[in-house]
Amino acid sequence: MTDHRPPSLHSSKRVLALCGGVGGAKLARGLNDLITQPGNLTITVNTGDDFEHLGLNICPDLDSVVYALADKNDRERGWGRADETWHCLESLKELGAESWFALGDRDLAMHLERSHRLRSGQTLSDVTAHICRQLGIRAQVIPMSNNPVRTVLHTNEGALAFQDYFVRKMGKPKVESLSYTGADIAQPQADLMARLADPELDAIVICPSNPQLSIEPILALNGVREALRLSKVPVVAVSPLIGGKAVKGPAAKIMQELEIPVDSTGIAQVYLDFIKGLVIDQADELDAAYVSVPTVVTQTLMKSPEDALSLAQATLEFADKLRLEATQTK
Amino acid sequence: MTDHRPPSLHSSKRVLALCGGVGGAKLARGLNDLITQPGNLTITVNTGDDFEHLGLNICPDLDSVVYALADKNDRERGWGRADETWHCLESLKELGAESWFALGDRDLAMHLERSHRLRSGQTLSDVTAHICRQLGIRAQVIPMSNNPVRTVLHTNEGALAFQDYFVRKMGKPKVESLSYTGADIAQPQADLMARLADPELDAIVICPSNPQLSIEPILALNGVREALRLSKVPVVAVSPLIGGKAVKGPAAKIMQELEIPVDSTGIAQVYLDFIKGLVIDQADELDAAYVSVPTVVTQTLMKSPEDALSLAQATLEFADKLRLEATQTK
Repeated sequence: MTDHRPPSLHSSKRVLALCGGVGGAKLARGLNDLITQPGNLTITVNTGDDFEHLGLNICPDLDSVVYALADKNDRERGWGRADETWHCLESLKELGAESWFALGDRDLAMHLERSHRLRSGQTLSDVTAHICRQLGIRAQVIPMSNNPVRTVLHTNEGALAFQDYFVRKMGKPKVESLSYTGADIAQPQADLMARLADPELDAIVICPSNPQLSIEPILALNGVREALRLSKVPVVAVSPLIGGKAVKGPAAKIMQELEIPVDSTGIAQVYLDFIKGLVIDQADELDAAYVSVPTVVTQTLMKSPEDALSLAQATLEFADKLRLEATQTK
Repeated sequence: MTDHRPPSLHSSKRVLALCGGVGGAKLARGLNDLITQPGNLTITVNTGDDFEHLGLNICPDLDSVVYALADKNDRERGWGRADETWHCLESLKELGAESWFALGDRDLAMHLERSHRLRSGQTLSDVTAHICRQLGIRAQVIPMSNNPVRTVLHTNEGALAFQDYFVRKMGKPKVESLSYTGADIAQPQADLMARLADPELDAIVICPSNPQLSIEPILALNGVREALRLSKVPVVAVSPLIGGKAVKGPAAKIMQELEIPVDSTGIAQVYLDFIKGLVIDQADELDAAYVSVPTVVTQTLMKSPEDALSLAQATLEFADKLRLEATQTK
């Protein structure tokens, strides 16, 4: 499928994206560059990996999305801020402080300001909105909930929070299952539910994030998965796998350990009850025949903002096609 | 008075110093270099200028002393850490956060670690002791109290905390009086009182810090001024003024506004009820005749750790002389 229309036709689309960390943040950036109408793009971000460190509230996925949208992310390292320095971290080590988490000097400003505002009684969504305004971000970026939800990986070495699993244990323990502590009582962020019910919505995009770690925590919130299932808007997922591997992070390893096929069919299986289509990479073209929903094949590897823009365009184009087909079928 | 004895004779002296920020911290460094017997030097530091900023507990005078003793202070700038960078501060400005206080990246580690430990229930003296151990500091550095005391400058522009007066108002308002909120109910740190009562003590040194801002808050604590008055140990002050001017900071301006003579006689007047001697600079040699306590004239300007060591030596030598004279008089 080739898009012959100029990107401007997508600029006033109304889109809801569900998103986790780095991979998802890249597509969020592409969608943000494409949808130029302010307020028309809502990006709901996983907060299941949020944690406290040295008294700071750290929200890794929110930060990845905000830095990507503000063009402040480090593209080579793949996480954190560009032009980062580590002088505070060096001094923390001198003081014998906890230093397992790589706190960059520029990045610290985000944690300080957010923690300070949260401590003064603001909600995480208020703080996030304030920060996005300060950084000139057009899209509406919202945490999935203002209530704490914590993703727990149940492994052969016991129950681990994400940072424990990924940073301290270097992602080595075998994952047996996951749970999302607090998800049953957390309120999904009001703007997420409003956008899910928005009759003007054009598409819902599941970004190429880790399904179990980044997307499932959002789906675990009361009413979200059901709203996606019942939505008349095409829900399109972008596979985070290319050639059976994750571009970055532990997605492939975790899927394998959970006995989910580590390919496009596995991704479709995880989201089967609500997606209408799956975007897969050129490398996985042959998967298309085995995936249980319609697919579109394109380049999903995002090495640059231009790649991300193209993928965003292909994804919304695909959603248009699915919507048109649904209308014609009726 | 010339010291003909090698510095090693001072190395096992037991000394209590009262100290504020930058100027006092230099002499504290000199005393620390001189007194090599671990635990024999106790430096009590003013906490009246401590404040909260972005949820961090900032103790400017403790930090100046700790950085000076750990040889991590910036000598050219005169405050904060050497080799400092300001990337977090730049990013705080981008986020529209409060940025009037110059938070250095390396310095931030101190505030983060201290705030985190205080929030977890440790006392300021415990945290300070821990940090000093980590940085290999030989002297015992103690905050004057673990309870909050806040120095308030009553000015023609109203009541101001030190940072408001000095940083925000650039030290311009006219100071009419000072008060030390909380000093009446704060407990002086236990080690300060123990050292004041220590029969083995050789000298008590009032460092060349701002009398009103740095030393008076310590003296305002219950029992401290009285213990100094009654002490049999020679209490020696080092004048912070040279040629009627403060080396750094607002000491001269504040003394003038409070109608205290801005010279050695004024310093002697402030401490008159408890000092046995005053160390003054060569530039103020002619003041000696007018000062109401014995004086010693030496170079008090400390441009290097070597200068600070010499001043520390001259100060302890002077205390020895005063003690000897007192014995002979009896």
